[in-house]
Amino acid sequence: METQPDWKDVLSAARTLDGVAHRTPVLTSRALDQRSAATVFLKCENFQRTGSFKFRGALHAVHALAPERRRQGVITHSSGNFAQALALAARLEETTATVVMPKDSTPAKIRASQAYGARVVLCEPVQTSRVETTEQEKKKTGATFVDSHDDPRIIAGQGTALLELVDEIRSGEDPAEDGSMDPLDVILAPVGGGGLLAGTAIAAKHLCPSSRIIGCEPAAADDAFQSLQQGRRIVDFVPRTIADGLRTPLGKLNFAVIQRLVHEIITVSESEIVDAMQWAWERLKIVIEPSSAVALAPLLAEDSRFKGSRIGVILSGGNVDLDPFFALLRADLHRGLSQDLRPL
Amino acid sequence: METQPDWKDVLSAARTLDGVAHRTPVLTSRALDQRSAATVFLKCENFQRTGSFKFRGALHAVHALAPERRRQGVITHSSGNFAQALALAARLEETTATVVMPKDSTPAKIRASQAYGARVVLCEPVQTSRVETTEQEKKKTGATFVDSHDDPRIIAGQGTALLELVDEIRSGEDPAEDGSMDPLDVILAPVGGGGLLAGTAIAAKHLCPSSRIIGCEPAAADDAFQSLQQGRRIVDFVPRTIADGLRTPLGKLNFAVIQRLVHEIITVSESEIVDAMQWAWERLKIVIEPSSAVALAPLLAEDSRFKGSRIGVILSGGNVDLDPFFALLRADLHRGLSQDLRPL
Repeated sequence: METQPDWKDVLSAARTLDGVAHRTPVLTSRALDQRSAATVFLKCENFQRTGSFKFRGALHAVHALAPERRRQGVITHSSGNFAQALALAARLEETTATVVMPKDSTPAKIRASQAYGARVVLCEPVQTSRVETTEQEKKKTGATFVDSHDDPRIIAGQGTALLELVDEIRSGEDPAEDGSMDPLDVILAPVGGGGLLAGTAIAAKHLCPSSRIIGCEPAAADDAFQSLQQGRRIVDFVPRTIADGLRTPLGKLNFAVIQRLVHEIITVSESEIVDAMQWAWERLKIVIEPSSAVALAPLLAEDSRFKGSRIGVILSGGNVDLDPFFALLRADLHRGLSQDLRPL
Repeated sequence: METQPDWKDVLSAARTLDGVAHRTPVLTSRALDQRSAATVFLKCENFQRTGSFKFRGALHAVHALAPERRRQGVITHSSGNFAQALALAARLEETTATVVMPKDSTPAKIRASQAYGARVVLCEPVQTSRVETTEQEKKKTGATFVDSHDDPRIIAGQGTALLELVDEIRSGEDPAEDGSMDPLDVILAPVGGGGLLAGTAIAAKHLCPSSRIIGCEPAAADDAFQSLQQGRRIVDFVPRTIADGLRTPLGKLNFAVIQRLVHEIITVSESEIVDAMQWAWERLKIVIEPSSAVALAPLLAEDSRFKGSRIGVILSGGNVDLDPFFALLRADLHRGLSQDLRPL
């Protein structure tokens, strides 16, 4: 197994990302603070290039390749955010990306990857076909495989979001008199493959060592929770969650980091995920995807376990298929808005 | 008619709002700059308290009342954002708000106004009933009527959004050598009743006198456009637009300011409004309401008339009924996500 990345790797990733990835905004909300009885800082990776934190790791991984390997291109399989992230990273690093996608991926996702310059190769919608097709394409092209999460450079790249979050909070506040106060009591991040949670934990260990690092996971895809409980990595499960970004099994390297540094995994129900997503759209006016809502949901729960805490939340992305909603609106337009038309 | 407010009134409103209204973020977007071939600054009033710029004017108007009048409460009629804005403003100024709303207002809007502390009185959904009911309630309570837009204090309050926008842009950039460069070539703001556009124009006249001030209006409710063309205020029209915030007839005072200071009104079609709204949600990851999309739509048009310009856009609000969309999602959950469930 590869060596676990450390704080120096996160710093190195931050240098690579500087000026290329967005330094995404940190939002605060009076409504959210009231609701959670806490002080909450939202790191908005839904505003990141390609719409999710995945761009951080992808850029770092592509950039880290030796020039002669990088020239031969990169390849991955993904049906989601990593496809777009790797496509853009490859373009910016002046190489090519091949993305193997299940042929029943939504047309919007395929188009988005192509729009960022990827060559998309469709495969059967089963894991074996994904792996085989990727292997064939790799041989054909000589491209380097980049895993979406189980890779030290990916993990280090994802850790830069927390680095920026802590930086932003510190720059806005007077340091404590003894200079020792941690800027956050609790850090919440979603966990699927585990790249974001592992990177976040590594950065937190250095930046705010007494913060409690909590992974948030759908109860309907709770392999990280089960893996930590049982002390072994669970891979044989069928995810049944709306949080499409979190259906990936926990990576090996990621599990090792998470076992070492993460304090707890909280699981949330499917309806809590949808409720949190709606709450964010309605009250915060930001579009977050279900995977992000998984990390917000614990703050909206009735138990107020975070009362009085300073909490950082990584909102991982904002890629949602909005066509169904706008189809409804356009149908209303077509019907002449009969329900909603009267002068004020 | 009351005197037109001026720059000093905007400054005075800014002092009232300081620390109470949100200083909303200014967002920029690589994707939007590419699409419009311009440099665009989005003043995000969708993040304002109560979800729209209306809170600025409402707070300023309530605060400006003499204490003994203010104690007797305020009253307005509104089926939209001003109801919530006045409700919160009254609560913060420690008085009461009565809001007359048409009885077919969406339950969400009625609940929102009540949640901010307003006493909601329902009336028949016609203008005469709104006016009569308001008059009755005013007599009963002794409350002061606050018009949603046709009021110098409201106009001055709305002008503070542009003040902050210009301030933010200037603080982020080196001043030109002769100190004279305007920070914006063009300013786009939606126009309905005209309070936001008039306030914006007054602030712009002082802050960036060579900027071109453009009002943006649905073609299906183009009373401001027609009024400027004909040199008289059009009030007899039936608005047929999805932009519910812009169905209000242009106010008298507002028209006078707009005639004097606004350079042009651009009209956009209903489908351009919906397209721009979807584009903002998908690409910018922010929830904006149709009225905001009216001011964004001209930048997404094919004509590239703004090529090379520096453009400020006031995104007026983000209050949209999301229940239909989330009802779809919840129905999917219920059906077990059969379409979308497979392990990655």
